[in-house]
Amino acid sequence: MNECTPILDTGLRGASVASTRISDVNGKLGKLIYRGYLVADLAQKSSYEEIIFLLLRERLPQKDELAELRAELNEKRKLPREIFAAMEALPRDTPPMDVLQAMVPLLAHGDAHIKERELESSMKSAVNIIAGLCSITTAWERIRNGKDPVMPRDDLGHAGNFLYMLKGRDPLPEMVNFFDTALILHAEHSFNASTFTARQVASTRAHIYAAISAAIGSLSGELHGGANVRVMEMLKEIGSSDMIDEYIEKRLESGGLIMGLGHAVYQVDDPRALILAPMSERVGKITGDTKWYELSSEVEKRAKQAFKARKKMDIFVNVDFYSASLFYAMGIPMDLFSPVFAVSRVCGWAAHVIEEQFALAAPKPALYRPGASYIGEYCGPDECVFVPFDER
Amino acid sequence: MNECTPILDTGLRGASVASTRISDVNGKLGKLIYRGYLVADLAQKSSYEEIIFLLLRERLPQKDELAELRAELNEKRKLPREIFAAMEALPRDTPPMDVLQAMVPLLAHGDAHIKERELESSMKSAVNIIAGLCSITTAWERIRNGKDPVMPRDDLGHAGNFLYMLKGRDPLPEMVNFFDTALILHAEHSFNASTFTARQVASTRAHIYAAISAAIGSLSGELHGGANVRVMEMLKEIGSSDMIDEYIEKRLESGGLIMGLGHAVYQVDDPRALILAPMSERVGKITGDTKWYELSSEVEKRAKQAFKARKKMDIFVNVDFYSASLFYAMGIPMDLFSPVFAVSRVCGWAAHVIEEQFALAAPKPALYRPGASYIGEYCGPDECVFVPFDER
Repeated sequence: MNECTPILDTGLRGASVASTRISDVNGKLGKLIYRGYLVADLAQKSSYEEIIFLLLRERLPQKDELAELRAELNEKRKLPREIFAAMEALPRDTPPMDVLQAMVPLLAHGDAHIKERELESSMKSAVNIIAGLCSITTAWERIRNGKDPVMPRDDLGHAGNFLYMLKGRDPLPEMVNFFDTALILHAEHSFNASTFTARQVASTRAHIYAAISAAIGSLSGELHGGANVRVMEMLKEIGSSDMIDEYIEKRLESGGLIMGLGHAVYQVDDPRALILAPMSERVGKITGDTKWYELSSEVEKRAKQAFKARKKMDIFVNVDFYSASLFYAMGIPMDLFSPVFAVSRVCGWAAHVIEEQFALAAPKPALYRPGASYIGEYCGPDECVFVPFDER
Repeated sequence: MNECTPILDTGLRGASVASTRISDVNGKLGKLIYRGYLVADLAQKSSYEEIIFLLLRERLPQKDELAELRAELNEKRKLPREIFAAMEALPRDTPPMDVLQAMVPLLAHGDAHIKERELESSMKSAVNIIAGLCSITTAWERIRNGKDPVMPRDDLGHAGNFLYMLKGRDPLPEMVNFFDTALILHAEHSFNASTFTARQVASTRAHIYAAISAAIGSLSGELHGGANVRVMEMLKEIGSSDMIDEYIEKRLESGGLIMGLGHAVYQVDDPRALILAPMSERVGKITGDTKWYELSSEVEKRAKQAFKARKKMDIFVNVDFYSASLFYAMGIPMDLFSPVFAVSRVCGWAAHVIEEQFALAAPKPALYRPGASYIGEYCGPDECVFVPFDER
């Protein structure tokens, strides 16, 4: 992480490009920290609303502050009419991530604060977008299935509203708690492709909606947000525990990875996976279908053994490994896994956008404008000679 | 531009992050090169359609190839019905850049090639998006003014169709030529905030529509695409040539910049500005209103003198300086200046996305995932202790 890390054609891996006060990842010890607090602690003891406050404002909320934030979220979960109308216009098989990326810039229209460039205005915009993304995602699930969107309820929190608006029925309190924890665990993870995209767009002084829409685009890539979908596809491909060894063998022989194992940063089990695994088991028990949790657990065990035996190396589960079976058991359609990720991570993105907008961790605002090395044509010592069209 | 350029909190200025074969900027000599050719040459001798081919395919088209590309553009300029329907749903004062960013991901739905991950499929998607952005921009201008969108015409090229679909009447051939040249001049400029955003989103394997929508978000920032709008605002503020000196004086004293003067890369006049200036003059003469060109020209002259005299430094015009009065004279509404920039630059973005997708200039595909330096709280040698909500 020093200034001489090679950066040409490396995707900036390992190069520290910006200071941040938002989160830290200790890959060696398996610690993920939001604003100084261990995420393992936060997952047990706080709510997603508290995390919104913590990530945006760098401290935990007082009681009245949290009440105020909840009220603001309740209000902002009601989408402007044009967002519903625009979604109604779309073919029902439009992929949800495309819909999310498209709808977020349109949320800007209803935001009176957007031109103020004041910290408190940006905080309000952030809450608007966090609330709005929950409603857009659930509304699209309803609309594409030919159902009316479900209006949010003020007596439910963010996690509860998501499940209620998705399904149109009262969610079990235990499910709400698990979903709330999942939202906390996915809310922030320092720099990564989508967060970097959000900061970069914000650095041109584009508004927060433009920045977060761009981040959604980045998350939609299969190397980023799509990983837990691929874990679920793997579990379905394996199908039953007697097929695990054969699957692992095949993957190891072809030099392929096993989805959900290994991470760019963690050298131990991902602290989030350790919390998601028992949740996945518990939700399986509630719904009466523990198959996918059990299969996951067995794949983890045997893959770890196989890597040890054949490659003499340890391999670790990442966040996507158990979120797959957890979300699946909760009845969330697989193509909403990435949107759910976005519904949670939007909070971290917003914190990063604000940090960038107001240079809260850097000496001054930076417009990201890297250079490139031209290795293309020159046709000799000078430029190529243009041959007119008629002579070609 | 070596590997040890400091990159922490510098917005990656001057740090070369990727190899590219697409374009090169020689800031010292004022040369801009697309795929080996001087842009000054291309602006005089080629058409925007040739530039699309050149930027995407690294060589100039043969006659049949250009005819094929023109036919493909003609076909793709016809937008899917849902795009019109979604735009119709929006409040008429929705800012055009938000509309563009929102509509581009929705173009993906009609693209059958999107999942193929083949070079030729990506080329087709690129042409679809280049054609589509022209139609979206002009359709939104019509819709927001309560008019029906104008359907594209196969006997017009890209520049001609843009002007025709914008105004609903036959454009003057000379205007078409000038607009075509403006499209060529804005088509590509190596790495910059929006191009870097597009490449970065593409690096997660998100589709090209997601990447280009994100780039539009980046371009919407006033530090990036908004610059020629601010030049025009400046010209209007100055109002007449007898107010120029006072304005320049005031700006120099307050340490402010003069919009359209100075550039991160060029140390001489921007080669694009040298071509745009006479075009701006000529269009003014055609429309009978040379005021804005003349004012620009006078501001350039006096600002250069003032910088020389007071700051002992040379200052140079950049691309935005004369594109402002040019687009204004062409009757393009000021809040469409950035969309017009996007309608042109989309071609460069697409070339960069494809270069990234297929690692055409790098040893292997890179997922941009930089690191960050945590400088936030730790509350002591270990993590902060979480105080439960009830005890706060």
